[in-house]
Amino acid sequence: MLQIDPDRLWQSLMDLAQIGATAKGGVRRLTLSDEDRLGRDLFVRWCGEAGMTVEVDGIGNIFGRRAGTDGDALPVAMGSHLDSQPSGGKFDGAYGVMAGLEVVRTLNDAGLRTRAPIEVAAWTNEEGSRFVPTMMGSGVYAGVYTLDYALAQTDVAGISVREALHGTGYAGAAQPHALGAYFEAHIEQGPVLEQSQTTIGVVLGALGQRWFDVAITGQDAHAGPTPMETRKDALLAAARLVIEVNRIATTFPDYARGTVGFLQVKPNSRNVVPGEVRMTVDMRNAKDGTLSAMAAELERCAATVAADCRVDIKLEQVVYFPPSEFAPDLVASVRASAQAHGYSHRDIVSGAAHDAVYMARIAPTAMVFVPCEGGISHNEFENARPEDLAAGCNVLLHAVLARAG
Amino acid sequence: MLQIDPDRLWQSLMDLAQIGATAKGGVRRLTLSDEDRLGRDLFVRWCGEAGMTVEVDGIGNIFGRRAGTDGDALPVAMGSHLDSQPSGGKFDGAYGVMAGLEVVRTLNDAGLRTRAPIEVAAWTNEEGSRFVPTMMGSGVYAGVYTLDYALAQTDVAGISVREALHGTGYAGAAQPHALGAYFEAHIEQGPVLEQSQTTIGVVLGALGQRWFDVAITGQDAHAGPTPMETRKDALLAAARLVIEVNRIATTFPDYARGTVGFLQVKPNSRNVVPGEVRMTVDMRNAKDGTLSAMAAELERCAATVAADCRVDIKLEQVVYFPPSEFAPDLVASVRASAQAHGYSHRDIVSGAAHDAVYMARIAPTAMVFVPCEGGISHNEFENARPEDLAAGCNVLLHAVLARAG
Repeated sequence: MLQIDPDRLWQSLMDLAQIGATAKGGVRRLTLSDEDRLGRDLFVRWCGEAGMTVEVDGIGNIFGRRAGTDGDALPVAMGSHLDSQPSGGKFDGAYGVMAGLEVVRTLNDAGLRTRAPIEVAAWTNEEGSRFVPTMMGSGVYAGVYTLDYALAQTDVAGISVREALHGTGYAGAAQPHALGAYFEAHIEQGPVLEQSQTTIGVVLGALGQRWFDVAITGQDAHAGPTPMETRKDALLAAARLVIEVNRIATTFPDYARGTVGFLQVKPNSRNVVPGEVRMTVDMRNAKDGTLSAMAAELERCAATVAADCRVDIKLEQVVYFPPSEFAPDLVASVRASAQAHGYSHRDIVSGAAHDAVYMARIAPTAMVFVPCEGGISHNEFENARPEDLAAGCNVLLHAVLARAG
Repeated sequence: MLQIDPDRLWQSLMDLAQIGATAKGGVRRLTLSDEDRLGRDLFVRWCGEAGMTVEVDGIGNIFGRRAGTDGDALPVAMGSHLDSQPSGGKFDGAYGVMAGLEVVRTLNDAGLRTRAPIEVAAWTNEEGSRFVPTMMGSGVYAGVYTLDYALAQTDVAGISVREALHGTGYAGAAQPHALGAYFEAHIEQGPVLEQSQTTIGVVLGALGQRWFDVAITGQDAHAGPTPMETRKDALLAAARLVIEVNRIATTFPDYARGTVGFLQVKPNSRNVVPGEVRMTVDMRNAKDGTLSAMAAELERCAATVAADCRVDIKLEQVVYFPPSEFAPDLVASVRASAQAHGYSHRDIVSGAAHDAVYMARIAPTAMVFVPCEGGISHNEFENARPEDLAAGCNVLLHAVLARAG
């Protein structure tokens, strides 16, 4: 059975990680920065050395293409992103692109031609750290955002995507083309695989998300002279909502998750009953119907808590991503490939969004997860084991071969 | 029955409120500022005009004294403070001093001599806004702090109490003297009297206080990929503690109060499970034993929550004030005085500390509360009705006469 070269994959990741390397062993390669440009240059050079042709589209997405034997077959693509968080790691995104490149190199070494063309994509601005929205390049490609909208976005210094993109020389003219399939390999960015000592995560899809801003208005009062029964304590109401969000997420089915990550108290003084709290709620679920039911339950709880605590609660939904279900035949092929290699594997859903979430809207899509140390990501200490990365790449190789013929 | 002059009392309060008057109708008369000096000057002038002798002690406490007929009788004192919060009101503190002055003026007008001397005290730095600790002047007088300790405290600009006190010219040499009784009239700074449409609060004592700093350490995690059951959510633990503090305060007897006024989340990002929370707990009770039981119950809850949420919780007590019980005979005399005037009255405990709390350690002490609008204080919109202030002053007058003979 054909195998990728684990050392070459690891070396490519380490070479790429030199660009924007941080003192603590992480990577700072912000979208369309000089470091991003140098990362792109290296990737394009490697594509050329692997005999691929390279195209760049209007938002800077890069496509390396290895021709197939059937001129009419739609390409089978792999990919992810080369940009990082401000204090990011060496594997988030980079792994999916380098794994795609390694698959092509392996096919080259074996002298194998596939029926369908094979592509390796590097999507622009997945992280959304410098420019929002996140997953900008794949979003434009999938028609979620118009190119003009994306190019007009600015960073905190007022520099537009258009300007920054021209600065890198990666403002291309390629038009979107149809894809026969899209595979993305990625570190899990969560603890499930590591904790269950599993090498391969067969990703069924990505959780849908509903994000809320919550504003709670009670009334400031002195902690001493104000009896409990006359208080309008905004923090007490907030605490009850935090508990309810947790209850909803632990009792609803379908990979339900619920998080209050942000909470701010006013006036935030030791001996003053808080009159105001702003907080967020992040709810996720694999099924759209269950996600809606979670949101409805949150609304119901907010009304009850507001009445009980004599406060006003405003709940505003600020983000909605429907759940993505990946293509069952591609998912099955990832599972079969893991099985064929004898890798331990389990079905998993992606709690985070990835470029694959947008690609799933326009092409049959699947993802391969490998464990990362402690589930830690978006952090300079992000780490993954070479053998796990190699296993994921082997699974990718065989899933792609199964599709590309 | 002898009555004070309501208009003169009101006019004195309004004249005093001119010093440090703010645009919104409040007062900014920070401890030992120019405004505090001008306020002191006015009070000292009025004491002189009322025929009182004036003494100042080492921490700047001012005592106006009206001689009695019995040279051996211990003085009966009234008082409060002239300093204000940065955005304070016209009545907090000022009322107690002006009411004392009005009692003396009324006695003068009536040509009444008391057996015991009568004093009106203005305590230095009750508010603690510019210099901590609060209730500094009465604390030094009562022996809670040494004079040297108090004089060495500095404001944010590094100016010491010693330096600021010399700047005002109110660094005196008077030694503490024994008091036969101490009465303090004060606005309630809470909603109880107004809500129950009561004119006079007969203050039984002041709540004891235990303040805690709480540090909760869990672990940051991505809100998406991290399943609920593996989280160590510091904010979930904090929310449970907020609920427990409220439960304790609403179920324990003896005027129990419990407040989480301050809560800070890290990293405080919408899609990150919080790894750290710092918060405060303020517990109050009229009985020391019950206050201890509340603290013990908090400790017990913290341990349970820490185990349930897989987080570490550190609870540190940073302030302990025992409850003050005022002198039963003086309290009874305040009640009898309210009754004699036909004022509606109710027993009440002070949720906040006052100079009277320290004075109660060295002399028989009582307080008279009058309603303030909406229970609001420490605010430029602090307000009180002239008729309520006059009623409180009449009660003070007769309680003092009952004691001073």
